[in-house]
Amino acid sequence: MSVLFPKGFLAAGFASGIKESGDLDLSLVAVSGEKPAMAASTFTRNLAAAAPVQVSRSHLEESAGRINAVVLSSGNANAATGAKGITDAELMCSLTASGLGIPPNQVLVCSTGLIGIPMPTEKLKLGIPKLVALLGSSAVNGLSAAKAILTTDTKEKLVAFQGSNFRIGGMAKGAAMLAPNMATMLAVLTTDASVTQDVLKASLTDAVESSFNRLVIDGCTSTNDTVICLSSGEAGEVDREEFRSVLNNACMSLARQMAMDAEGATKFVTVKVVGAASADDADRAARKVAGSQLVQCSFYGADPYWGRLASEIGSSGAEFDLDQLEIRYGDYPVARGGVSVEYDEGALKAYMSKQEIEVVCSLGLGNGNAEIITTDLTPGYIAENMRTS
Amino acid sequence: MSVLFPKGFLAAGFASGIKESGDLDLSLVAVSGEKPAMAASTFTRNLAAAAPVQVSRSHLEESAGRINAVVLSSGNANAATGAKGITDAELMCSLTASGLGIPPNQVLVCSTGLIGIPMPTEKLKLGIPKLVALLGSSAVNGLSAAKAILTTDTKEKLVAFQGSNFRIGGMAKGAAMLAPNMATMLAVLTTDASVTQDVLKASLTDAVESSFNRLVIDGCTSTNDTVICLSSGEAGEVDREEFRSVLNNACMSLARQMAMDAEGATKFVTVKVVGAASADDADRAARKVAGSQLVQCSFYGADPYWGRLASEIGSSGAEFDLDQLEIRYGDYPVARGGVSVEYDEGALKAYMSKQEIEVVCSLGLGNGNAEIITTDLTPGYIAENMRTS
Repeated sequence: MSVLFPKGFLAAGFASGIKESGDLDLSLVAVSGEKPAMAASTFTRNLAAAAPVQVSRSHLEESAGRINAVVLSSGNANAATGAKGITDAELMCSLTASGLGIPPNQVLVCSTGLIGIPMPTEKLKLGIPKLVALLGSSAVNGLSAAKAILTTDTKEKLVAFQGSNFRIGGMAKGAAMLAPNMATMLAVLTTDASVTQDVLKASLTDAVESSFNRLVIDGCTSTNDTVICLSSGEAGEVDREEFRSVLNNACMSLARQMAMDAEGATKFVTVKVVGAASADDADRAARKVAGSQLVQCSFYGADPYWGRLASEIGSSGAEFDLDQLEIRYGDYPVARGGVSVEYDEGALKAYMSKQEIEVVCSLGLGNGNAEIITTDLTPGYIAENMRTS
Repeated sequence: MSVLFPKGFLAAGFASGIKESGDLDLSLVAVSGEKPAMAASTFTRNLAAAAPVQVSRSHLEESAGRINAVVLSSGNANAATGAKGITDAELMCSLTASGLGIPPNQVLVCSTGLIGIPMPTEKLKLGIPKLVALLGSSAVNGLSAAKAILTTDTKEKLVAFQGSNFRIGGMAKGAAMLAPNMATMLAVLTTDASVTQDVLKASLTDAVESSFNRLVIDGCTSTNDTVICLSSGEAGEVDREEFRSVLNNACMSLARQMAMDAEGATKFVTVKVVGAASADDADRAARKVAGSQLVQCSFYGADPYWGRLASEIGSSGAEFDLDQLEIRYGDYPVARGGVSVEYDEGALKAYMSKQEIEVVCSLGLGNGNAEIITTDLTPGYIAENMRTS
């Protein structure tokens, strides 16, 4: 049910021709009434932030977070496109706004696709009015909106979570740091919970931190990453903590779907570092292990070569004492006190051949814990990324 | 001519059976006289430093840099091997020392290969006396010593540089940050220049910094990386600056040979960042670009997708203004003022299809420049690294 699961939203998807394939490439999520939604957003920290990111940031500020619609395009990132890029992103908002009869700065905009290529302005001019006309609340509408933001994704990513007296829905594409060929991670979440802007903002920041920001595929941060949450408020007051928790779960579900659909990936891997000297150290070590090409290759080969993990932790910058190190894959310990222990090779191989595996590195130095999600590195990733077309 | 090019050195290689293939796996470089050489060394900064690194560090200190021999093994890294690892590394030194009639702490030791596997002590006990007996000064000796340190390398890496009145020779394996399957970068350089320990140390640090430390393949730092330089002094006094310069060239030649032979690599790429706000910023940006999986994939595909470079620089932590960015591949500008410029696609494709290419990113912010060497990321890398056997 996607972004249409909570009360108060409409959606649409349209094929404007930005994608030469003829696939859906314009997406719209809007409130069904006249009253704008309360909006919160997190954006990429990349200093080469794309035009739509810059424009959305401004609109969010100008409108004090009162937003009626989010318009999204796929196939072209509108990044590294100079002044024309800004004009095109503003155009996407004003075309949407005039269709809906609202001010342009009550519209947010996202794009995903190739970097450094000017947007096909004429296609936007023709396409966006048609997109607005297609707005509706049927299941097909929600699905079309979700399909229209995909690039190298093989399937749409949807969530629908039910709280005790409210709902959260959402759609997403890509993976935060996978930055594929036709880059970027985008997510739009909707809710009918009535929450203050402060609560919405804090809850989203928290949810993004513990979901999308825990995902490390290739260490690349896109120019266009954007997560937006819109609240229609139609379900009335809710329990803050419950809202925060359900939003966390919704974002985590989308993050997992991204990892499962990462380019070329065949495995979903959770890397846990426990017992680090500090939480920061645990995070640093887990990110170094998860982002290591060598480690990711060994996941692909289902190879329990723990020496690589030790080497990555040792060069992560985290406090480290090899003599205290314990490593296990799932329930199979492979190292203790920094040296190999005997294990059942067949059983471990069978475990590592599963689609979803877990690695736990215990540093024995303190109480710092961290968890990062990653995938394996495969020839499929290279095949997808060696050429733009 | 390898390590035997300068006056005053002997070398040998032997197949002890550490490698199941039966290939050469023990290597020895020693001074030909009784007087020890002056030695300087740089070691990995990985906190999981292997036993031979720990032992060599101690010996270098205990002997005040007076070293008669370096014994090296390949096939097993003697890393993450606990107390037994230290005992085995000390054993390699004492066996070598007793063969040569010198104190054990005048021997340095290096190992490269799999991590986390105990050394086959019996093979060392049988092999090292035979290795010592093979010491000689013929071309075959130098070549055998160089072959005996290889792991996934496809060819030996040798240098022989002639100064005005001195010589520098050397051998190496692997790539500093490639950390392949059977990991590690090792290099032994020899010279007959008579230099003080301070000059030797400063020159080596400088040379390593501008060669091996400018090489970024996969961002992995090995547990065993070691570079050693031995000076016999037999050629007498030399010009300090000339010595520094020739040593720089020798290390750069070895670094280039490593990149050319990096696992699965088909291209040798120089990434230059110029006009950064500071030298540190330039270094940071160049390392982020060179180490990016996505960028390395596009090199493999000979794809001039400069948007990826912009995105990597933007997320490198360096000061950045997209509007000032210029990028060229070789002599072909592709972006100026942060947007695409027109170029001859056929000519650019032809350039990017070469084995050796250059990318120059101009940030337009200051005078900070940096240069990093890298390779492309290919299915061959994954095939080599997905399994340890």
